[in-house]
Amino acid sequence: MKDEQTKGNDMNEAVHWYAVTTVLLFVKMFAISLFQGYHRIGKRTFKTPEDAALVGRQAAAQELPQVQRGANAWRNDLENIPIFLALGVAYVWVEASPSLAPWLFLSFTAARYLHTMFFLSALQPWRTIAYGIGILCLFAMCAMIIAALL
Amino acid sequence: MKDEQTKGNDMNEAVHWYAVTTVLLFVKMFAISLFQGYHRIGKRTFKTPEDAALVGRQAAAQELPQVQRGANAWRNDLENIPIFLALGVAYVWVEASPSLAPWLFLSFTAARYLHTMFFLSALQPWRTIAYGIGILCLFAMCAMIIAALL
Amino acid sequence: MKDEQTKGNDMNEAVHWYAVTTVLLFVKMFAISLFQGYHRIGKRTFKTPEDAALVGRQAAAQELPQVQRGANAWRNDLENIPIFLALGVAYVWVEASPSLAPWLFLSFTAARYLHTMFFLSALQPWRTIAYGIGILCLFAMCAMIIAALL
Repeated sequence: MKDEQTKGNDMNEAVHWYAVTTVLLFVKMFAISLFQGYHRIGKRTFKTPEDAALVGRQAAAQELPQVQRGANAWRNDLENIPIFLALGVAYVWVEASPSLAPWLFLSFTAARYLHTMFFLSALQPWRTIAYGIGILCLFAMCAMIIAALL
Repeated sequence: MKDEQTKGNDMNEAVHWYAVTTVLLFVKMFAISLFQGYHRIGKRTFKTPEDAALVGRQAAAQELPQVQRGANAWRNDLENIPIFLALGVAYVWVEASPSLAPWLFLSFTAARYLHTMFFLSALQPWRTIAYGIGILCLFAMCAMIIAALL
Repeated sequence: MKDEQTKGNDMNEAVHWYAVTTVLLFVKMFAISLFQGYHRIGKRTFKTPEDAALVGRQAAAQELPQVQRGANAWRNDLENIPIFLALGVAYVWVEASPSLAPWLFLSFTAARYLHTMFFLSALQPWRTIAYGIGILCLFAMCAMIIAALL
């Protein structure tokens, strides 16, 4: 079936790793929500009034430090992961280097896993290094896309 | 023309519902911006100084409660909808179950519509239930993608 | 190779401009991060404690005004660009008007470049006009997608 769709094993390779990384990045982002929920529920501390009311509490003046840290990790994810996913689509469509696809896609994914772990653990300069590796992967994908368009 | 692109009605089905849900989710998210703009303009309350100056006001110290609630709905949308849209691409590309596609895509979309309505209306536990249904759809899409890859 | 994948020059056209705009939008969003990093590093002001510690400082009580302005530009980008990128995929897949594709994709991209410049420069009503042009492009893409589905 896949041969019909993508015309050959080379494209299959990029599509395959696109699908794998999309699933892995969803799981990683959802893990931040679990981390936030664990702290919110464990400490029964909610900023949204109707959430606090569910456990018979008043709304907290601000989110817990761990929840704020999770929100920062989320924000950085949202600044990087959706554009990666769109560059991945462009990468597949313009038939940019299929042999580099697994390396670029998986390096980006590994860098984002590390970024979240380092952010939640407050580990610097490791967090910035992980962020930088992700950005390098995005620029490399752009370079491959442009090379395929020329 | 579509038959040329997607090779058969099965793939057409998933592509068709991907397009429908993308349009529906855009409209839903834009509705939050309308809700925020309605309150900002109606009450002439703007946190950004140059916006307040347009209506001859000083910048507000903070956003209106309705605008903050809209921002929270937006944030939850951005944590869920872009990854849904990328999982949808992977779903189509790996030719995961075409017969489940409309159910999964439309259930997710309906859950997100309800989530926004419940968030703006401060209705709990309904908001959390709607969020959970959306997450279940995302995990089901991951399972179908992985099954197609194996 | 591209002819094999996309079956004809018309689809190539939309795919080509999708790839170009994705790269351009990545560069534009990354520019906001550079702007934020320039101010954070230049003024050695960091809200995250472990970042401040790297330069031997205490954590700042809040982000610099320029960093906050960058964060607002980022937030508006994230509310508009990921859904554009997904509508672009739907646009290509349903084979909506290929001749309009470059106009719509590039107008949206130009509008978002202007939006960021006007936001960082606090120029109103120009920022709202640029935002509105972007939204009009998104609605036009929806209309073309729906027309192709009917």
